[in-house]
Amino acid sequence: MRPNVYKFGELIEDVTTHPATRRAVEGHAQTFDAAQKDEYKDILTITSSLRGERISRYLSIIGSAEDMIANVKMKRLMFNLTGTCTGGRCVGFNAINSMWAATYDMDHELGTDYHERIRAWLKEAQHEDIALAGALTDPKGDRSKRPLEQNDPDMSLRMVAKETDGGIVVRGAKVMIAGAAEANEVFVLPGTGYKEGEGEYAISFVIPRDAPGLTVVEARHPSDGRDMEAGFDNPVELGGITQGYLLFQDVRVPKERVFMAGEWKYSLRAVLNFIAPYRSAIGGCVAGQGDVMGGAAALMARANGLSEKVFREKLVQMTVNNETTFGMGLAASVMGKLHPSGVWIPDAKLANVNKVHVATLPYETKRLAQDIAGGIAETGCLPSSQDLQSPLYGDLLQKYLKAGSDGETRAKAARLLEWLTIGEGVPGCMHGGGSPDGAKLMINALAEIEANIKLARRVANLKEVPTPEK
Amino acid sequence: MRPNVYKFGELIEDVTTHPATRRAVEGHAQTFDAAQKDEYKDILTITSSLRGERISRYLSIIGSAEDMIANVKMKRLMFNLTGTCTGGRCVGFNAINSMWAATYDMDHELGTDYHERIRAWLKEAQHEDIALAGALTDPKGDRSKRPLEQNDPDMSLRMVAKETDGGIVVRGAKVMIAGAAEANEVFVLPGTGYKEGEGEYAISFVIPRDAPGLTVVEARHPSDGRDMEAGFDNPVELGGITQGYLLFQDVRVPKERVFMAGEWKYSLRAVLNFIAPYRSAIGGCVAGQGDVMGGAAALMARANGLSEKVFREKLVQMTVNNETTFGMGLAASVMGKLHPSGVWIPDAKLANVNKVHVATLPYETKRLAQDIAGGIAETGCLPSSQDLQSPLYGDLLQKYLKAGSDGETRAKAARLLEWLTIGEGVPGCMHGGGSPDGAKLMINALAEIEANIKLARRVANLKEVPTPEK
Amino acid sequence: MRPNVYKFGELIEDVTTHPATRRAVEGHAQTFDAAQKDEYKDILTITSSLRGERISRYLSIIGSAEDMIANVKMKRLMFNLTGTCTGGRCVGFNAINSMWAATYDMDHELGTDYHERIRAWLKEAQHEDIALAGALTDPKGDRSKRPLEQNDPDMSLRMVAKETDGGIVVRGAKVMIAGAAEANEVFVLPGTGYKEGEGEYAISFVIPRDAPGLTVVEARHPSDGRDMEAGFDNPVELGGITQGYLLFQDVRVPKERVFMAGEWKYSLRAVLNFIAPYRSAIGGCVAGQGDVMGGAAALMARANGLSEKVFREKLVQMTVNNETTFGMGLAASVMGKLHPSGVWIPDAKLANVNKVHVATLPYETKRLAQDIAGGIAETGCLPSSQDLQSPLYGDLLQKYLKAGSDGETRAKAARLLEWLTIGEGVPGCMHGGGSPDGAKLMINALAEIEANIKLARRVANLKEVPTPEK
Amino acid sequence: MRPNVYKFGELIEDVTTHPATRRAVEGHAQTFDAAQKDEYKDILTITSSLRGERISRYLSIIGSAEDMIANVKMKRLMFNLTGTCTGGRCVGFNAINSMWAATYDMDHELGTDYHERIRAWLKEAQHEDIALAGALTDPKGDRSKRPLEQNDPDMSLRMVAKETDGGIVVRGAKVMIAGAAEANEVFVLPGTGYKEGEGEYAISFVIPRDAPGLTVVEARHPSDGRDMEAGFDNPVELGGITQGYLLFQDVRVPKERVFMAGEWKYSLRAVLNFIAPYRSAIGGCVAGQGDVMGGAAALMARANGLSEKVFREKLVQMTVNNETTFGMGLAASVMGKLHPSGVWIPDAKLANVNKVHVATLPYETKRLAQDIAGGIAETGCLPSSQDLQSPLYGDLLQKYLKAGSDGETRAKAARLLEWLTIGEGVPGCMHGGGSPDGAKLMINALAEIEANIKLARRVANLKEVPTPEK
Repeated sequence: MRPNVYKFGELIEDVTTHPATRRAVEGHAQTFDAAQKDEYKDILTITSSLRGERISRYLSIIGSAEDMIANVKMKRLMFNLTGTCTGGRCVGFNAINSMWAATYDMDHELGTDYHERIRAWLKEAQHEDIALAGALTDPKGDRSKRPLEQNDPDMSLRMVAKETDGGIVVRGAKVMIAGAAEANEVFVLPGTGYKEGEGEYAISFVIPRDAPGLTVVEARHPSDGRDMEAGFDNPVELGGITQGYLLFQDVRVPKERVFMAGEWKYSLRAVLNFIAPYRSAIGGCVAGQGDVMGGAAALMARANGLSEKVFREKLVQMTVNNETTFGMGLAASVMGKLHPSGVWIPDAKLANVNKVHVATLPYETKRLAQDIAGGIAETGCLPSSQDLQSPLYGDLLQKYLKAGSDGETRAKAARLLEWLTIGEGVPGCMHGGGSPDGAKLMINALAEIEANIKLARRVANLKEVPTPEK
Repeated sequence: MRPNVYKFGELIEDVTTHPATRRAVEGHAQTFDAAQKDEYKDILTITSSLRGERISRYLSIIGSAEDMIANVKMKRLMFNLTGTCTGGRCVGFNAINSMWAATYDMDHELGTDYHERIRAWLKEAQHEDIALAGALTDPKGDRSKRPLEQNDPDMSLRMVAKETDGGIVVRGAKVMIAGAAEANEVFVLPGTGYKEGEGEYAISFVIPRDAPGLTVVEARHPSDGRDMEAGFDNPVELGGITQGYLLFQDVRVPKERVFMAGEWKYSLRAVLNFIAPYRSAIGGCVAGQGDVMGGAAALMARANGLSEKVFREKLVQMTVNNETTFGMGLAASVMGKLHPSGVWIPDAKLANVNKVHVATLPYETKRLAQDIAGGIAETGCLPSSQDLQSPLYGDLLQKYLKAGSDGETRAKAARLLEWLTIGEGVPGCMHGGGSPDGAKLMINALAEIEANIKLARRVANLKEVPTPEK
Repeated sequence: MRPNVYKFGELIEDVTTHPATRRAVEGHAQTFDAAQKDEYKDILTITSSLRGERISRYLSIIGSAEDMIANVKMKRLMFNLTGTCTGGRCVGFNAINSMWAATYDMDHELGTDYHERIRAWLKEAQHEDIALAGALTDPKGDRSKRPLEQNDPDMSLRMVAKETDGGIVVRGAKVMIAGAAEANEVFVLPGTGYKEGEGEYAISFVIPRDAPGLTVVEARHPSDGRDMEAGFDNPVELGGITQGYLLFQDVRVPKERVFMAGEWKYSLRAVLNFIAPYRSAIGGCVAGQGDVMGGAAALMARANGLSEKVFREKLVQMTVNNETTFGMGLAASVMGKLHPSGVWIPDAKLANVNKVHVATLPYETKRLAQDIAGGIAETGCLPSSQDLQSPLYGDLLQKYLKAGSDGETRAKAARLLEWLTIGEGVPGCMHGGGSPDGAKLMINALAEIEANIKLARRVANLKEVPTPEK
Repeated sequence: MRPNVYKFGELIEDVTTHPATRRAVEGHAQTFDAAQKDEYKDILTITSSLRGERISRYLSIIGSAEDMIANVKMKRLMFNLTGTCTGGRCVGFNAINSMWAATYDMDHELGTDYHERIRAWLKEAQHEDIALAGALTDPKGDRSKRPLEQNDPDMSLRMVAKETDGGIVVRGAKVMIAGAAEANEVFVLPGTGYKEGEGEYAISFVIPRDAPGLTVVEARHPSDGRDMEAGFDNPVELGGITQGYLLFQDVRVPKERVFMAGEWKYSLRAVLNFIAPYRSAIGGCVAGQGDVMGGAAALMARANGLSEKVFREKLVQMTVNNETTFGMGLAASVMGKLHPSGVWIPDAKLANVNKVHVATLPYETKRLAQDIAGGIAETGCLPSSQDLQSPLYGDLLQKYLKAGSDGETRAKAARLLEWLTIGEGVPGCMHGGGSPDGAKLMINALAEIEANIKLARRVANLKEVPTPEK
């Protein structure tokens, strides 16, 4: 692929070897490797409804509650194996399913052929077993204004031309896109529900990550300077995060890869189709990372010379938190409904409740992990791994770091705890896929206040009471 | 039935009309009425695997995740309709399923015929559509001692004789038994897992509620004096709670109704079979009551002259709490496993996590309801309904209670809020079916600390660290 | 005094002996008794700035941080001794201080003689050592409307006539007034800050509790029916709550007892003067009740046969909660300022922060107490004390209630826990002295967002960013 | 001073200019600068009891509740001005006061002259206005073993020789020492309470930071690689943290600077003297940083184009958290007692309760700040400042980052939020000065369970119930 990924002001020639991206590549590689293993293949693969053969679940249509449950489990598993997010596969997976349903609706209601296009593209993508990133979030500019009220119309990604052959040209950006650097292709969604007159923003398509006119600039993340260092201060080689800013400078998308091009009435539906499974499955993500945190905290207790049993109450609370986001993901899955296109859409209320938990419980889980692990791990408060090798004083540091384990093991365990709770491993799930305030708005819309008032009135035989006007 | 239920030192001649029990009877009656209604019958009835005809779900074998999910929904529905607990059906339902599996195991492993007995009894019970209470909790005496270490061997219910015809005679008590007064029969379970030498306590059977030698003394509950008054200070006529102390004075149980008689090895299994579905479904209970609380709080806001929209943040949090216990119940259901006897056993870890939520979230929900509803509802701080009728000053009270509604409606709404949060409607779910500390012990046993340590070690390539001995 | 207190539709001839009021009278009597005891007299008495002799602190001017701190401690002490609220002294105390400052301001700015009136009245009241209730809360009617917009102008207490001799006539009500039945006199405050044209509502005065035209109807509280029973189901004889609805049917107040009569500009100040010390000292109240809850929970653990050490984590959290509301009261006290009238006004921000804690932490404290104490105490789930005496089965109940203590002691301890957490002892502190939402509005007004933005901009050398208009 | 500070394996020649330390130096410099300013001098300076002249409060004896309150305020102020910790002055301040009391006790009880020594040293230190770090924490090794049970006796700092002239030689380490690099001298305390036979560890002294044999290796902190970069990705130039590992290779301390040398009985007292004021004042620290977080979050809201009023509920909760830790520090101060040496010791129970809050509330405050600020700030998810200057795409990034402010201001504001919540500004207060579990142990020891049981028994007239033996 054409090198078009930058970080720290420089072009990354090869994402698989460059220190800023190689760990994230390795994490994504594990999604392929694990699919080959007997113990994981039922979770990571599925028989394709399009091809009749076994394919990666990441490229499948979620056709039932069981499929959706497997999705939640897959997220948990991959966080278990990589310690963090493999967004370069999972957001794309979600995007496919969202647009599978939305294109079906458009074709049936408008007579378009979008669904045929996505079907043809997907069949091939399954065969190639591509890594597919998904791109939802627009820069948006001033949050108090709609796209066309902005000083600059490019603040949300838009279609600047529709070509005669049905292709489109797009300009703008998608930001904080997980795993773009690791992906073969990027699936673009409309960033929100658009209104009449905003059709230029209602677009969806898929392009190669190295499409002409597309530039990816990677965001920093906490302590990412350590990626560029030798030593173990970034202690995890098996996983990592990238979140790119995708700059579209009049990128051309050929017709067969365009899945929405102005049909603004369907943009909200596309977003809602995206949100429900995303906010369900993300409960598996934070549970999976929470599992590793529980393990890291218990390990750190031992490295400090203490039995993890001392911290039973805290470890139980961590488990409660993990199982809650996981369980709510399962609940949303099982209470879902089948869309006529064959996509299973989880229950929106339960999914959004889970988003609220995902935005709060992991903070408690991290606090508990730091509490168990002690001051050395709270902020990774120990010298660098270079210092531990210093001929002048490295042996002294090793001596004084020793406790329930040798000094280096304890140092690495502390770094892992730091990585998970205040370092590079923290995936940014609070706002990923939308803010908790957005989730609360949806819960409010879905909460059946009037029905509940009726229940209350019935049990106590109460008259109706009108809502005050003001 | 023979009158054998007492409260306030007096015999209740007819539970259906006596003010101490009639509301609870009415609540239980709704389980039968609703089963006839089109909108509820799918939840409240099921085709019997024994009879091939439609029966009450309360007397069914839970044979699949779907059945277990319907159970969770049924609990939520019945709290919606009665405002509180209908324990005189649901605990018995749980007990049947627990012993269905345990008797199956005993018959297969010991060659007994208990499973045949329970099958025969159940088939008939389904036909009669009985209301069946379940009895788990023993008095236990000094919690630091086992049953035979107590000064008095009767502190847990025990078998004092085994008769030649296979019947048994039992002595002791079961305490805090929900809905016994409303039930036709009572299904008794062993109260805990017993050890060798404690066989006399490992007993299970079913008896009529008016069996000779059995006396039921009802516990008080908050503000239960109001049951005996005229007026609306107990504002709910459609539901109510009874929790009886069942005193067994050498009660004889015929052979065909005995399902365990000394097989102590199976007592823990029976309890675990009971706990998992109970702690799953109870999430539906507190969600169902939370729905009514949300409605009552919103109604009270209106009665105060305020739109419920003012309290959106709080109502959303109440919804989050309700959906969490409900959702975790669904999650435990869907992650369950089929016992060879045909009983579906929910996932124990998720069920116990839910128990922890059930012991905490409703307290926040109640606090939020009181917060929205204002000082008048917080502790029901308004004069009695007799006072509102006083010829001397009743009109003045009505005048000053008026706000967004007339005074009496506001007074009743405040009473409902009080009833739900600090009054007769509070069902005691924190310890019902076992304490949250017990649930935490189970979570600790089920949490995979070693597996999580392995995950942590793998992602950061860390050496093993031994647990300190002390 | 003239009997003018009613409950359950009936006149209470003698509040000191009637079961509905005698426990509350006893609680208030303890404020007098304890003042005589060496161990408490420094907290309960102070040298009067008016009389130069030792008087009850409840009738004193709070003249310094030390005095305010002693107030907080006094509240904690009295909850320790009575288990609940003695509002018939403490609200009046707060009211005196509020109006001491407000009358001073009025006299200095308007040339009135209100301050002289309150001084003369107080000097005499100190000599008589009266019990003085305080009355703040108006019925208010529809919360979305101001007093004169209501259908009925009486929804807030108002002055309907000003007499030529300077006396006034008032009509309306004050509601949920703690301790009125136990008080000799009632100190009335304006219920909120009034605006121009609302002068008739801006009134303050003091009257005997049996003033002609004044009727007191007592509110119910949870389980208050037990007051009327024999036995120990209301387990506390040393304290109790009354909260009266005071109906003013054209009550005449002589000039020398009128402290505000139309000066609406000063009504908000009076309320703010009231709020700051009230919301500080109430932290002592809930801490004091929390102390008793901690003791009751530990006792109940022992009565169950368990060491309270098993529950160390929970007891520590209860202590954290108690010390937090107590400590925040101290903090608000020490950060206060002296009003020119000689009244010490605690810091409003810290006082209102404490109100938020008072509206939340006790709910956790109660939950923890119920958690420790077990199912029998959670909702007081045991038969009535009449049942425990039944000749038919009382001995059996006593037998089965026995555990770490005899049955009756355990039953009483459970009743105490119930009384404290879901029964008559619960004082309604969430909305007492104003709602937590009101406190949050004040915190918002007092929070220095702009100053904090400046701090943030300074440390990172950031440009100013304007607030969006909408 | 002799360069003896290392980081990343290299010697720092000049801490005032080296990027790894210059921000922390600048933060500490502000403690001197602000002391000159009229608005701050009352907080930052005090009249010396030793010199009779105005000195830095950081070198004063805390002689009253007022002094202790000023200490709490000073911490809050310095976090306001630097955004983070200036540990190189405040821990030393605490250490002086701790040993002022402990040496007084030793001199009075043992006839030593330690108090004279510390007095003489302090008088001079006040004159020089030195920056003084404090060193408490030992490496400790295996936490399950006491110092002499460790494989290596050096795991806690110890005296390896006592010289004839009264000087001592020490070996070992002190770890995670805040501000050592910025300090002129380091005040060393015993790390815990020692027992008989452990006298070699019971040592206290003060030495220059560049004493022969002393090496300081700086710990990393999150994102500290950015210190070494150009640009604004570490957005704060006015403050910073260093936490050093101090390696003592047989360091000689002259007699006049030795304040404890083997008197193990006094080591626990020294630690307790240290803990109470430290855990009180740290409430000011986290409040001060919380103020900046509130400002940064509100600023970020504006930079996103939203009014901070949208987030009122969250900002109020942040204020509640800030004022709680601040207020509890004040409360512990005001409830303190005067030690005969003239040192005011805050109340231990309230101080430890505050430590529990300090270990929990800031995590909520950070979460709320991230919630308000949006995804870009949650993990600082935007390209590096080098990227923003890229000639290839820098203008595009600036364009797309623009919202309620220009792109660079928004980027910097996001970096500030990241710095405060998941970056270099996070000071590690959870374990600083001891763990929250340690604080809970102290609260448990100080909680008056027996007294509370007595209160409970008294109000309900309950018999004594013995604690079970097991």
